Amino acid sequence: VSTEPLSTTERTRLGRKPQRGAADRDELYAVLDSGLICHLAVVVNDYPRVLPTAYGRDDDTLYVHGSSGNSTLAAASGRQVCVTVTHLDGMVCARSVNNHSMNYRSAVIYGEARLVTDGDERIRALRVITEHLIPGRWEGAREPNRKELAATSVLAVPLAEASVKSRSGPPIDQEEDLTLGYWAGVIPVRTVFGAPESDTELPVPEHIYARAGHTLSG
Amino acid sequence: VSTEPLSTTERTRLGRKPQRGAADRDELYAVLDSGLICHLAVVVNDYPRVLPTAYGRDDDTLYVHGSSGNSTLAAASGRQVCVTVTHLDGMVCARSVNNHSMNYRSAVIYGEARLVTDGDERIRALRVITEHLIPGRWEGAREPNRKELAATSVLAVPLAEASVKSRSGPPIDQEEDLTLGYWAGVIPVRTVFGAPESDTELPVPEHIYARAGHTLSG
Repeated sequence: VSTEPLSTTERTRLGRKPQRGAADRDELYAVLDSGLICHLAVVVNDYPRVLPTAYGRDDDTLYVHGSSGNSTLAAASGRQVCVTVTHLDGMVCARSVNNHSMNYRSAVIYGEARLVTDGDERIRALRVITEHLIPGRWEGAREPNRKELAATSVLAVPLAEASVKSRSGPPIDQEEDLTLGYWAGVIPVRTVFGAPESDTELPVPEHIYARAGHTLSG
Repeated sequence: VSTEPLSTTERTRLGRKPQRGAADRDELYAVLDSGLICHLAVVVNDYPRVLPTAYGRDDDTLYVHGSSGNSTLAAASGRQVCVTVTHLDGMVCARSVNNHSMNYRSAVIYGEARLVTDGDERIRALRVITEHLIPGRWEGAREPNRKELAATSVLAVPLAEASVKSRSGPPIDQEEDLTLGYWAGVIPVRTVFGAPESDTELPVPEHIYARAGHTLSG
């Protein structure tokens, strides 16, 4: 695992509100490890395209996967991509409309997506993605067989060029607005899990309860 | 409001699992109207960039806004963008790793972002974005003044080229996996609001309670 601080490149330098940026690699890991989906952006025929997808992190590599017939993954393979993970933590209500904001944590990663061709790395990547979403799930289900692996594409994006940004806390109003008589504050937003809905008569296993039993963020 | 069904263009034709697609414009509106943030993708110096941002919908126009110094909005102005709104509804656990999935609803919009220069439309767009996030909030806060408006950029994206995709329900396993003895089912995922955290001694207004008092999705 790299202990280098996050790089600052032309692409990752924060133009607006740089005080919201984080330079610590652990903060990147924290945002990624507590998210469920990312938004993967690619350029296809000169146009931007962004789609939600699952992901997982193995040290300083982020993995995404999909069907081998997935045109977005095909367009991303060997090309520059941008991957963003966003946690929305609250809606920030100021006295002025202009100072309304969001509380959030987000990570933006730039890099070249590498098509994973090595068999061992492909299996490891799928395990990382599966375990990212539900720790313990890899052992709790049937592993992919040869045919399924052949129908799956895996891309690796290095965590070398990334920025992390966040906002938390109450609204920040101009001094002269504080006495206007408008309510101000934060409406917290959280992502939560509901009770597992079984599709079988088997008992709900511990790793499913463990995942569903706690609040994800906020 | 257009009553045209959703267009199918080369960009919006669903390559994978077209049965998950929706052709009804009302389904596009439903996904957009129940979301809080979108992910806006642009091409900057030939590279893809995707960032989370607030948005609002006025009939067949989607609005986003930001500081006039925001380099992503500047790069998007007059250019092709892709805007995606995603609701994650559940983690779908199948007997096989390969059939794991997500329950979700997502909308993907392609179009040229138009910089809004007309003063009336700018105000209307900001009102639409504000009211999208918290209905009633525009009247519950101080309106933007001339200086604040001058420091704000608004972009309009037409809802002319879009696709909607969703998955719901239990896992779908291969017949031969049904008896393997692995648990299968869905862990629901929901976005919820917490109790408002006041930054003032004024009472929490009705529009804030109305927003915070109900579950957003799922």
